[in-house]
Amino acid sequence: MKREYLFAPGPTQLPEEILRILSEPIVYHRGPKFKAILQEARADLKVLFQTEQDVLVLTSSGTGAMEAAVTHTLSRGDRALVIEGGKFGERWGEICQAYGVDVEWLRVPWGKAVDPADVRKALTNGSDIRAVFVQASETSTGVKQPVHEIAEITRRLPDTLLAVDGITAVGVFPVPMDAWGIDVMVSGSQKAMMLPPGLGFIAMGPRAWARAERSDLPKFYFNLRKERELQPKGETNFTPAVPFIVALRRALQMIREEGLEQVFARHERLAKATREGMRALGLELFAPESPSNACTAVKVPAGVDGEKIPKHIRETYGVTIAGGQSKLKGKIFRIAHLGYYNPFDMVMVMSAVEMTLRDLGYPAQIGAGVRKVQEILAG
Amino acid sequence: MKREYLFAPGPTQLPEEILRILSEPIVYHRGPKFKAILQEARADLKVLFQTEQDVLVLTSSGTGAMEAAVTHTLSRGDRALVIEGGKFGERWGEICQAYGVDVEWLRVPWGKAVDPADVRKALTNGSDIRAVFVQASETSTGVKQPVHEIAEITRRLPDTLLAVDGITAVGVFPVPMDAWGIDVMVSGSQKAMMLPPGLGFIAMGPRAWARAERSDLPKFYFNLRKERELQPKGETNFTPAVPFIVALRRALQMIREEGLEQVFARHERLAKATREGMRALGLELFAPESPSNACTAVKVPAGVDGEKIPKHIRETYGVTIAGGQSKLKGKIFRIAHLGYYNPFDMVMVMSAVEMTLRDLGYPAQIGAGVRKVQEILAG
Repeated sequence: MKREYLFAPGPTQLPEEILRILSEPIVYHRGPKFKAILQEARADLKVLFQTEQDVLVLTSSGTGAMEAAVTHTLSRGDRALVIEGGKFGERWGEICQAYGVDVEWLRVPWGKAVDPADVRKALTNGSDIRAVFVQASETSTGVKQPVHEIAEITRRLPDTLLAVDGITAVGVFPVPMDAWGIDVMVSGSQKAMMLPPGLGFIAMGPRAWARAERSDLPKFYFNLRKERELQPKGETNFTPAVPFIVALRRALQMIREEGLEQVFARHERLAKATREGMRALGLELFAPESPSNACTAVKVPAGVDGEKIPKHIRETYGVTIAGGQSKLKGKIFRIAHLGYYNPFDMVMVMSAVEMTLRDLGYPAQIGAGVRKVQEILAG
Repeated sequence: MKREYLFAPGPTQLPEEILRILSEPIVYHRGPKFKAILQEARADLKVLFQTEQDVLVLTSSGTGAMEAAVTHTLSRGDRALVIEGGKFGERWGEICQAYGVDVEWLRVPWGKAVDPADVRKALTNGSDIRAVFVQASETSTGVKQPVHEIAEITRRLPDTLLAVDGITAVGVFPVPMDAWGIDVMVSGSQKAMMLPPGLGFIAMGPRAWARAERSDLPKFYFNLRKERELQPKGETNFTPAVPFIVALRRALQMIREEGLEQVFARHERLAKATREGMRALGLELFAPESPSNACTAVKVPAGVDGEKIPKHIRETYGVTIAGGQSKLKGKIFRIAHLGYYNPFDMVMVMSAVEMTLRDLGYPAQIGAGVRKVQEILAG
């Protein structure tokens, strides 16, 4: 009678209706039915990304869209500023380096947000930095980065673009691309969009499209100029992951029906309840100063073997959460609350965390976290 | 009461059981359940690709795997021989050119197979060609290329690899990678593998892996060395299209249960029946000399507006077939018979073709094609 619950920060759990759509017969991707579906999805994608620009759909993980962001906005030997405060910040830099872009790292202690003053400093005094890369939400640490403040700097510089990894931010909290003057926004399907992994998304503003015209970095599978020509007609350059796009249309309708502001407010409430619940259990948050509403990272309390937590909670309670990655292995655990989650999901996962920690020797006061979650969600 | 039937050469129709698997809750891609699924699928992939090499799974269309074939076997300025007898031959060359590889085109009239003697000629006399690119089955024309004969040439050359696009060949007819000495084999999920589009596959032999060690072409999302390190452990470099991999495991089991030889024999029978059925209708095949068992390309008969055929058969009978691409637009139509197709499917589609052609003014003897299909499939 074991049931399974998914609270990893991607892939996240899917609505039953989306799962059902995935089992519909395949639609021919060059026929009129598919064209109509992609066109409907495109309109809602613009709302979700808070942009008037085309949001292009790629058949890849979100990392593919990150690669496309680099290969379309830069040229060989260009210099980029990479804000690295976690595993996904590192990824931006690794992509740049793989393509021969010169990386200036702005290293931030994992668990902290970057200080916009440091970004400003790196970009002044005759800086030749052509693009800044940052995560809106750094999934490996649970940190929200100050994208608005960074965009205030880059939008005033004539030749410095801002590319934002919004993989666990778009549809979670506001990162209004056009209003803030963000040049490139990337996301992925398996997070707040309530879909399986397999689609990447990218939107680019006018400055980024101008760069794409002259970028000399090689690309073929990720060819945004071609996608931008085809997708408004309801076509894609190569055969796309059809079932995910059919499901995308419905997931975006669901977000529209709830209302984007309400979606943001729900994430805020679930995240706050999770954070306060953890504190009520006597636990310390890993990113208390600038937490992302996508997932909550919690320090493993003294006396508990951190590497055992994800294994124990999964094997004993059927609950999947994430541990820490690379240098955070064994030091934190992470609970997702982005996408298709409601208050009772958080009550449930908090309850499983309490039981797990007690099993592993932490003197948790059973019920303290759950009660706090309930109080906040009832409020 | 309209039902829809899919006979495009990809995506192809899916077994009901596969559709049901797609609607199962998402499995966490870093957990033990997913690892076991990927490992099971890996073993069956080797059987399907007729190789002892790792068959790596990529979250992309087949074109992504083609790009990976180029970026891992060549370096900047290397020279490649591209056999171009259709749209997908062109694609090999376009990928090479996008990455700065010097392309020598071996152009073949569309509808014809390449003459292996021409390949031999291009590769002798101090040729500096580092790789030959070809389609085992050129989907745009319905031609089967003489891969065995080409491999007999390349395997004897110390520094000339053979990369084969097996997207509509793997699981359709034998292209035994190891036995023939093919260096790189690429495929995609939405063809004979009876899955939705969204997964690319690539297997590389020892010579290709040695090249991958020193290739200087930039790559990040498609990083085969990294995938080869992770996938034997049941992991992927980036979040994969989980539902498709769960379904892949089952589709490969289904192929194993039928038996690879039987799968090839079934495709041979369905393809032969389709070809003979078309001839019995008085139609001419576009690739009569070297037809692929994946799809049958038929010349549009005089007096019929070829561009109307796919539209009419879809709108009137709910049947999706493909027209011609680029310079073949309006000149041919294509019927797929790869993957989850049985004799009655071919009876059905032949019947729809007969009715369509009659509707469009061709004096088809209704039933002549269907009768021939039945005769062959009953035989």
